[in-house]
Amino acid sequence: MEQQFTPITDEEIFDAHAGGKLSVGLTAAIDNKRDLSIAYTPGVAKVSSAIHENPGVAETHTWANRLVVVVSDGTAVLGLGDIGPSASLPVMEGKSALFKRFAGLDSIPLVIDTHDVDEIVETLVRLKHSFGAVNLEDIAAPRCFELEDKLIEALEMPVMHDDQHGTAVVVLAALMNAAKVVGKNLADLKVVISGAGSAGLAVSDMLVHAGISNVIVLDSKGTLNRNRSDLGGKKQEVANETNPENIEGKLSESLVGADAVIGLSTAKFDLLDLMKMAKDSIVFALSNPTPEVNPAEAREIAAVVATGRSDFPNQINNVLAFPGIFLGALDAKAKKITTAMKVAAAYAIAELVAEELSADYIIPSPFDERVTQAVADAVMRTA
Amino acid sequence: MEQQFTPITDEEIFDAHAGGKLSVGLTAAIDNKRDLSIAYTPGVAKVSSAIHENPGVAETHTWANRLVVVVSDGTAVLGLGDIGPSASLPVMEGKSALFKRFAGLDSIPLVIDTHDVDEIVETLVRLKHSFGAVNLEDIAAPRCFELEDKLIEALEMPVMHDDQHGTAVVVLAALMNAAKVVGKNLADLKVVISGAGSAGLAVSDMLVHAGISNVIVLDSKGTLNRNRSDLGGKKQEVANETNPENIEGKLSESLVGADAVIGLSTAKFDLLDLMKMAKDSIVFALSNPTPEVNPAEAREIAAVVATGRSDFPNQINNVLAFPGIFLGALDAKAKKITTAMKVAAAYAIAELVAEELSADYIIPSPFDERVTQAVADAVMRTA
Repeated sequence: MEQQFTPITDEEIFDAHAGGKLSVGLTAAIDNKRDLSIAYTPGVAKVSSAIHENPGVAETHTWANRLVVVVSDGTAVLGLGDIGPSASLPVMEGKSALFKRFAGLDSIPLVIDTHDVDEIVETLVRLKHSFGAVNLEDIAAPRCFELEDKLIEALEMPVMHDDQHGTAVVVLAALMNAAKVVGKNLADLKVVISGAGSAGLAVSDMLVHAGISNVIVLDSKGTLNRNRSDLGGKKQEVANETNPENIEGKLSESLVGADAVIGLSTAKFDLLDLMKMAKDSIVFALSNPTPEVNPAEAREIAAVVATGRSDFPNQINNVLAFPGIFLGALDAKAKKITTAMKVAAAYAIAELVAEELSADYIIPSPFDERVTQAVADAVMRTA
Repeated sequence: MEQQFTPITDEEIFDAHAGGKLSVGLTAAIDNKRDLSIAYTPGVAKVSSAIHENPGVAETHTWANRLVVVVSDGTAVLGLGDIGPSASLPVMEGKSALFKRFAGLDSIPLVIDTHDVDEIVETLVRLKHSFGAVNLEDIAAPRCFELEDKLIEALEMPVMHDDQHGTAVVVLAALMNAAKVVGKNLADLKVVISGAGSAGLAVSDMLVHAGISNVIVLDSKGTLNRNRSDLGGKKQEVANETNPENIEGKLSESLVGADAVIGLSTAKFDLLDLMKMAKDSIVFALSNPTPEVNPAEAREIAAVVATGRSDFPNQINNVLAFPGIFLGALDAKAKKITTAMKVAAAYAIAELVAEELSADYIIPSPFDERVTQAVADAVMRTA
């Protein structure tokens, strides 16, 4: 079992966030007039002139080229919903802190006070010389799909909406290893995804891309299928590419004979429904902080159970993926983060669990120090 | 005399700027799952919820409220001119480094790829929840005046164009002490300002505000006066408020009988012209890196000479002013940086030179550790 820890009090949380979670430091001391003449005028003029003559010098002699901006409009913050840019900032600061802690990458949060996709794109395009990569965070679906597409088009740098792709990469890694544990082929799994938000749809894409043909995605109205007339955009695309038997109905019907279910919404899992799944079933209850089903109870029925929580075995945590994906993309000087790079990242994460692989250990710990570099190396090789 | 130092090589400069001059750090370690649960999910949700319920919590529990953004469009970078946002970035990183070094304030550079004042304002308004103060830097006149005015109007936070006001504050401080050295009343000085760019016009405003009635400002065509038909905007305002005798002509004519000359352009000072000034004259040759006149030669004629250089006595350096001005404004929770606050800052800087006051020591060193707090205290008292 995973390590437990003493309960965290509200006071402890607020103390830890007082004054914010980030600080800016200098890479070299400025302790005398000579230092000042090097770091600022007149010395800095040489560096600015060099960039003016050869823009490539900015890549090596400013921090921008490897700076990740964590961008949010505050419309889908954790499970809290549309709480606005200011209230989203503690999350974005935390994300920037994780970039530093897990990838050694400098990162700053930029929260934007507009819901208009084109205005967000315009804002970041105007600022593009200030940073080298964009991590989109906590932006509501379906706007997040259009925003990511337009930003990838507009900016020649790595751009990724982590709620979609970071989640998808780690879920694929965990599912690969869960399939090994239960002795089934990944491609043969029937996988039900409960939730058609940004994460659910991205996980669906990733599983299809990894060769799984029988994926069924559900939103609050039931399965995405070709008989529905209320779908559009990304949901319609996913309805076209998944659900080969065009099954209709709710979660209960979809789970009959399914090998795996992945919860990415607040909809609960009924234990009786889980009992209708195939033998040696796999249950990922990833809603946070309250999983779709009590993992201990689910474990009585399923062969493998994972959650998003750190206090149960098999924590599906994006921090396994995004630091290494951005690090690898930046090290490779990639202009885009491709699907192939994300799949390579999933394989790299899965492969770090070797002999230790078991029903309660399908995914490495976020504090396994090998993870980021293994992911970055895989992403670089693929780039 | 000031300390001298060994010549700085290009290699040394480029080495010091390699990878950029800033880094982001964490204010608390994230070393285990418990730390992660406090800094990020699920703990951070408590802080975000608290801000959503009470926006004031963002002031104490994010870094934004005391974060200074250094903003430039790269149109008037040092003496290099319009070299663009990317090439301006080393200067902006340096400025952010100085905010940290001299005021302990976190600061990040944002360089903007547009020359349109309204687009720059719009960009910063959209991002306003991400930071707590704006230092405008290296933005060409006359656009810088309109931009600063509009930003002050649009943002409820300290906004200051340092090339204007930081310079003006330090020049006023130095001029106060220079007047003491030569035994003249500040208000009675006839002051000639060579240069009607952002710094020259702001210095003029500040000197007028400090009670000096006889100020003459020159641009490349000669004195700003009420007979000129080619002026507009800020230059016209200054022409209306200065030059009481409405003197026409070039620098040579203006300097006859002047008590002080302040160089803030590339126009050189002729030694023969300096000889026409009043007895015990004051010469500030602030162009960087090459002063308007060789300070050693000027010192043969004038009673007090100052430059912008660190290797001559009396360095007029903005770093004496802007760290303390922003620190004081933020500590006071001021929504604006007022003229009164800037004048108070100038007095505070001047007053730090007491018994040591002499022709070669009219202004403290940037490394005088008392400066920032003295300025901040003066600004706070005035706010």
